[in-house]
Amino acid sequence: MNQHIVKSFDNELDRIAGEIDRIGQMALDQIEAALDALMGRDAAAARVVVQADRAIDELERTIADDVLRVLALRQPMARDLREVYAALRISADIERIGDLAKNMAKRSLILDESPRNPAQDSLPRLVSLASELVRDALAAYHERDAEAALRVRNRDIELDRECTRVFRELLTYMAEDNKLISTCVQLMFLAKNMERIGDHATNIAESTWFLVQGEALPTDRAKGE
Amino acid sequence: MNQHIVKSFDNELDRIAGEIDRIGQMALDQIEAALDALMGRDAAAARVVVQADRAIDELERTIADDVLRVLALRQPMARDLREVYAALRISADIERIGDLAKNMAKRSLILDESPRNPAQDSLPRLVSLASELVRDALAAYHERDAEAALRVRNRDIELDRECTRVFRELLTYMAEDNKLISTCVQLMFLAKNMERIGDHATNIAESTWFLVQGEALPTDRAKGE
Repeated sequence: MNQHIVKSFDNELDRIAGEIDRIGQMALDQIEAALDALMGRDAAAARVVVQADRAIDELERTIADDVLRVLALRQPMARDLREVYAALRISADIERIGDLAKNMAKRSLILDESPRNPAQDSLPRLVSLASELVRDALAAYHERDAEAALRVRNRDIELDRECTRVFRELLTYMAEDNKLISTCVQLMFLAKNMERIGDHATNIAESTWFLVQGEALPTDRAKGE
Repeated sequence: MNQHIVKSFDNELDRIAGEIDRIGQMALDQIEAALDALMGRDAAAARVVVQADRAIDELERTIADDVLRVLALRQPMARDLREVYAALRISADIERIGDLAKNMAKRSLILDESPRNPAQDSLPRLVSLASELVRDALAAYHERDAEAALRVRNRDIELDRECTRVFRELLTYMAEDNKLISTCVQLMFLAKNMERIGDHATNIAESTWFLVQGEALPTDRAKGE
């Protein structure tokens, strides 16, 4: 294989890795923007988040196309094959994280029309725990750092515990004041979304581990459910 | 390439396709078993479902390994490449469906310990709508039938609407009787799980469409949220 072809192959892998960094940052921005819209009761900002999810969906498709093209034209082996495989899985997880941020924005539109629910103040902490996990998972991927990826998976348990605490708190609010029931339900689904974002961060960490180590992390782990 | 190698490649693709059929059936069985355990308040049966999810996780890993091996050793092109790509995506969706069935079994263990909630009777219909969608999506994949896949995606909207109806019903129950709040919350998450199973069935349908047609279905569709 001549030097030119090898170089161009490396460029394609770099491009895919760069696209993952980019789609990851888009998803992080969406989480933050959705939280701001929710806490600031800013319906216009929430609508912007809903619209912006489309760009994430499109970039995920572009990444899948790029991966398929590399697979078909370059027949990558070993580590290179794991690079494109990880890109495929990670971009799918990031796309779901984007969906969950969009869902948060949609729920904030519903919450905007209801009396303010004091339980809402538990949300920012959950959201930052979830987005830290995503940020750290993406950094572990960017650095190809298996140990950092492992730490993300272990820290997801903290987020699960915090979600459980918030669920209990919301149940108490609902039992004490019937008028809060429907907004508490919205907040529960929002808390659940953060738990799911944490699960996707864990998936990203697992894909990163596999990419670097060439073998899967064992499936078993303690769950904070 | 000699005839022997071509034959052996076809066998590998057939094997992967057969594994997808098998993991799909396992997930369908799990949904049914979880519903039976829930409605029959059968904690032992629910625990069997929780345990059995492990086999689905393991088969998903086997499929991913088989796909990576085919990619590395056979360098499939065009339709063959789409075959293995679809297998990878579809098995990931089925694995999530299995997780949601396991989650239903876990929630049934919680519901077992609470007074019976009459709203629970809305669940079987939701669960059958969701599992029909999965069954039809898997059949469309098995038959490589793009039109049947398209019908699955369109019918997912019905399931979303039925979920919304059940959510409203549950909110009414909660507002009328405080003692039902925590079981209604469990039922809401169960209804949400069915909505998510429908989304995964839709993903399977979209992967099938791509496999057969060689291009993606447009992302836009009406949502029954």
